[in-house]
Amino acid sequence: MSIHDYLKSCTAQIEEALSHALDGWGHIPPRLQEAMLYSLQAGGKRIRPTLVVTAAAAVRGDCASAAHAMPVACAVEFIHTYSLIHDDLPAMDNDDYRRGKLTNHKVYGEAMAILAGDALLTYAFGLVARTARGGIVSSDVLLAIVEELSLLSGAAGMVGGQAADMLGEQGVTSIEELEYIHLHKTSDLIQFAVKAGGRLGGADQRQLDCLALYARNLGLAFQIQDDILDVIGDEGKLGKKTQGDVEQNKVTYPYLIGLEKSKAKVASLTREAKSAIASARLAEPDRLLQIADYLLRRDH
Amino acid sequence: MSIHDYLKSCTAQIEEALSHALDGWGHIPPRLQEAMLYSLQAGGKRIRPTLVVTAAAAVRGDCASAAHAMPVACAVEFIHTYSLIHDDLPAMDNDDYRRGKLTNHKVYGEAMAILAGDALLTYAFGLVARTARGGIVSSDVLLAIVEELSLLSGAAGMVGGQAADMLGEQGVTSIEELEYIHLHKTSDLIQFAVKAGGRLGGADQRQLDCLALYARNLGLAFQIQDDILDVIGDEGKLGKKTQGDVEQNKVTYPYLIGLEKSKAKVASLTREAKSAIASARLAEPDRLLQIADYLLRRDH
Repeated sequence: MSIHDYLKSCTAQIEEALSHALDGWGHIPPRLQEAMLYSLQAGGKRIRPTLVVTAAAAVRGDCASAAHAMPVACAVEFIHTYSLIHDDLPAMDNDDYRRGKLTNHKVYGEAMAILAGDALLTYAFGLVARTARGGIVSSDVLLAIVEELSLLSGAAGMVGGQAADMLGEQGVTSIEELEYIHLHKTSDLIQFAVKAGGRLGGADQRQLDCLALYARNLGLAFQIQDDILDVIGDEGKLGKKTQGDVEQNKVTYPYLIGLEKSKAKVASLTREAKSAIASARLAEPDRLLQIADYLLRRDH
Repeated sequence: MSIHDYLKSCTAQIEEALSHALDGWGHIPPRLQEAMLYSLQAGGKRIRPTLVVTAAAAVRGDCASAAHAMPVACAVEFIHTYSLIHDDLPAMDNDDYRRGKLTNHKVYGEAMAILAGDALLTYAFGLVARTARGGIVSSDVLLAIVEELSLLSGAAGMVGGQAADMLGEQGVTSIEELEYIHLHKTSDLIQFAVKAGGRLGGADQRQLDCLALYARNLGLAFQIQDDILDVIGDEGKLGKKTQGDVEQNKVTYPYLIGLEKSKAKVASLTREAKSAIASARLAEPDRLLQIADYLLRRDH
């Protein structure tokens, strides 16, 4: 199967799992449930949940082993989706469109958008805990995953990156400061996805360290590529207004070091990511390597 | 020790634990950390974390057993605090004051208040997971606590209650609808606190069911008492403008069934709560019974 077909097949399985991920929690007020599903089902590359199932299969060398990783994959997408809903709010980035659709608060109002985000964030942890019911993953591993999700998506992780981005909006001048924002705002959740997948696949500590290094480089490359596409990208493909960052005076890699150096940085980070995978001695490393190349070459 | 002194001693221990609860997570952007601590340390009765440690000690019959319950006690207060920060936002209840202090967004701005709330919510689950490090509580029990926290504070629990409150703001006309809001908005997190304490103390399923019934009645009584105090309370003691709910046309128990019937309802719910504790056959039930009476008689 080509990497393109593989990613398509992963996305289809993830979409299917997401469409059932609000079942079995008890009665949710219908308007709240609608707001949660609106953003959960708004499409996107599903790259984070794909990394969870791919890392799980890569460690164990058995694609079937990825099925038990699906609730954690959904949990990552819940976290990613909540962060987009809250980031789009008028008090934050004030965006009206996301992936070509109206943002959550434009459809459901600010109060419901805040609550839909809170609810998705809250259920992410429940999804991880529920994996215990399958009987395949030990409680110790799941608890480690809960702790890491809290750490990497919290105040010293993803939320911290978003806070630094907000606080520095007018004044980010150094590449170090920008890297801090990118590493936490984007890379931390990607790191969680890859490591959680590794844990679900039974990775040892040395493998987890390699997977973390892969993910850190991959996440940073992913975000710089986003910056680049925002400058050169085609509006239709990205599904949101391009050059939005420039209009808002947002400091980006191309803004700080130029387009060519930014592209070179993405390429070198991708090489480092792939080299970390080579060191991990995984049973089936190919898909993780292909994903790194795919993200480097993507145009949306 | 009188119940008054017991509650004071619990509160002091909880305040101490909360003041260290952001340690050891890694670097948090200082302004974000300040916003989180501002609301965490804004005082309050700390009734939810007190219920966690009290229920743990009640089941095991050993006050010392409550120490390992402290991270979970802090987690409940993190959830409660985040919910207050988000509820106070302009898009929600639009409150400028809480417990006599400016609300979070009035001090730190809306963006930082949203992020501080998200960060507290996210770390609550990490605090539960970290309890594993103490080696006293099994991973299975902690994972059950994670799942229940997600369930009772999420879209079918506390967030659902807040959503129903927002959605029904103009149109709540029945006592059933109001009870739904109170049960989820307030009672669910209290239920979590008592049951989690019970689990940490080693309760069996029958005891957990009794504790849940106690908490459900206690939580509803607590919220109706809040409604009553909002009508008759003294502004200074409550630390916020009273009759705020009336000004905002918020439907309350006194509004729907009158003050006297509301008081009678609080008394009968308190009796039912205490009777559930009697059925639970706990090693040391007294403090849980005294807390029910204390909440019935409180004037703030």
